[in-house]
Amino acid sequence: MNTVEPKAIAVGKELKNDLLLKALLGEEVKRPPVWMMRQAGRYLPEYIALRNKYSFFERCQTPELACEITLQPVDIVGVDAAILFSDILVVPQAMGLEVELIENKGPVLPQPVQQENDFKRITVPDVNDRLHYVFDAIKLIKQELNGRVPLIGFAGAPWTLLCYMVQGKGSKTFDEAKAFCYRQPALAHRLLQMITDTTIAYLKGQIKAGADVVQIFDSWGGLLSPADFEEFSLKYIRQIVAAVKEEAPTIIFAKGAWFALEEMAATGAHGLGIDWCITPERARKYAGNHVTLQGNFDPAKLFLSPAEIKKEVKKMITAFGPQRYIANLGHGILPNVPVSHAKAFVEAVKEWA
Amino acid sequence: MNTVEPKAIAVGKELKNDLLLKALLGEEVKRPPVWMMRQAGRYLPEYIALRNKYSFFERCQTPELACEITLQPVDIVGVDAAILFSDILVVPQAMGLEVELIENKGPVLPQPVQQENDFKRITVPDVNDRLHYVFDAIKLIKQELNGRVPLIGFAGAPWTLLCYMVQGKGSKTFDEAKAFCYRQPALAHRLLQMITDTTIAYLKGQIKAGADVVQIFDSWGGLLSPADFEEFSLKYIRQIVAAVKEEAPTIIFAKGAWFALEEMAATGAHGLGIDWCITPERARKYAGNHVTLQGNFDPAKLFLSPAEIKKEVKKMITAFGPQRYIANLGHGILPNVPVSHAKAFVEAVKEWA
Repeated sequence: MNTVEPKAIAVGKELKNDLLLKALLGEEVKRPPVWMMRQAGRYLPEYIALRNKYSFFERCQTPELACEITLQPVDIVGVDAAILFSDILVVPQAMGLEVELIENKGPVLPQPVQQENDFKRITVPDVNDRLHYVFDAIKLIKQELNGRVPLIGFAGAPWTLLCYMVQGKGSKTFDEAKAFCYRQPALAHRLLQMITDTTIAYLKGQIKAGADVVQIFDSWGGLLSPADFEEFSLKYIRQIVAAVKEEAPTIIFAKGAWFALEEMAATGAHGLGIDWCITPERARKYAGNHVTLQGNFDPAKLFLSPAEIKKEVKKMITAFGPQRYIANLGHGILPNVPVSHAKAFVEAVKEWA
Repeated sequence: MNTVEPKAIAVGKELKNDLLLKALLGEEVKRPPVWMMRQAGRYLPEYIALRNKYSFFERCQTPELACEITLQPVDIVGVDAAILFSDILVVPQAMGLEVELIENKGPVLPQPVQQENDFKRITVPDVNDRLHYVFDAIKLIKQELNGRVPLIGFAGAPWTLLCYMVQGKGSKTFDEAKAFCYRQPALAHRLLQMITDTTIAYLKGQIKAGADVVQIFDSWGGLLSPADFEEFSLKYIRQIVAAVKEEAPTIIFAKGAWFALEEMAATGAHGLGIDWCITPERARKYAGNHVTLQGNFDPAKLFLSPAEIKKEVKKMITAFGPQRYIANLGHGILPNVPVSHAKAFVEAVKEWA
């Protein structure tokens, strides 16, 4: 299942640090690779300096800024992978919806998709036209990284993007988005397929531009029942994984969707991200032995002292085992975490060997 | 494990509708009982009329108002149990903290507990002094119910109350509350034990006043890892269940804590509430056969048409089986649900026989 074409492996060979690729391909590593979700972000003073100067979309759409932000955690914290600085909502934006991203407020889509008529305002775009700035950023990042570590590209899962496109803003329950799916399933599937088609082209474009690995973020997968997750989320993730997994190792992170680990592993994805609400033992049992697990440090544990963080990280690696495993948080790093604590997390993994 | 003293059973005998008690005691029923979390609330125009006239604490602390609101869903929607109209935050309030509950805004505790010095402001109160209005409301409700259906009393789990007492407001992650527990575990355990002692006295008072069943709400249990849930939540829920289960059937609802179903069943609780992110089959497998399961309708499915709601409810009952089961939602009813849809949910269960 988890084989990749020579291209991806060849890319791996140009890298000075290919731990992430090896872990995803099931090859033996001397220690697990480590990176952190939202590692390029607001816990870093260097990031905050840029945030205070440029709007979110300026940072996203200016390749030089996106590149600088992407590289910050590689330089400062020493992670084993860079992840593109961007946002999952660039896809709804490219499809035609207005998206406002105001720092510390959450996203707002003032004209959401809620009925058939609203489909007139959206399209499956030419990603080279609407999202070229992402591909330009990736090319620049790859050049600046110069093979130091691999670059992770990403996209939101269709279900999570639908949540925002229908609800129009963040929500604890996304009940309007769910009501839309339950009451108008034909429209929901039409929208999900449009997002899926856009996402496949978008991720292929990212890989072509140089992304070594891609991750699909289903932040709201855990809001669905197992049956609805299959119908409104996994069905589309499966299409995406099938379309890109031969081109680059692919990771699915569906927060809270522990109940579908077995089904997600069966998509042929190389890695599965998991949160801290499942033990490593149980996650491995459900996911099986032919997929790499990524996670699952409770982000709030980064408020412990550096010495205690190191102890907890070692416990975590012991529980997962060092092979077919990527050390990471179970969700994004929290804004108030001291940089020295993020460093302790990374150092603890590097000290494993 | 799940035996109750004659008192509770005797109470059951005075009831015209004792389906809930029978289901919790593992006795055979002709159909499952049905009620809905937050059934006395903002989807009911009769409730909104009172909300527009009286503040939250006026409604809570005036037995006549609490009684009227508690009875509304029994009269209007026809549920098989009443649940006391109150809020879990009356306990932190009784312990000495200021609590502001502003409708549609969420709770605010302006002076949270974050360091040792803050313990000077809190105490384990005499519940008969500080929470007598709850007991008065229960006596009045029991009188007005006149045995039509049983009355459920409730309290928040110590972990969930700590979340608010430390964070000072609602949060998606409760990272300050978690940081407090991880960094100052001795203080956290001191606070949790104070909440536990208060809660035991509070629930015993509710039962003495007439509550036929009690439910412990751990709304934020699912934010913890399995190990931390044991340390910061279940350890205290266990004390509470042990103290009250001989006096009245006891239900634990720890949202998202699917991973601890086995351990929660082992507390000797009579019922376990579950959300919709686990299949009935898996929930029964994890919880075992000696506990009653309660749930787990996705609250957003109440936006379906009444006919579709009935179809979904029947599917749910078939999956759980009608014995040792209480039909309910997997979380609170959403504010915009039409009353006719709530009625369809209840009717579908009543049509089971």
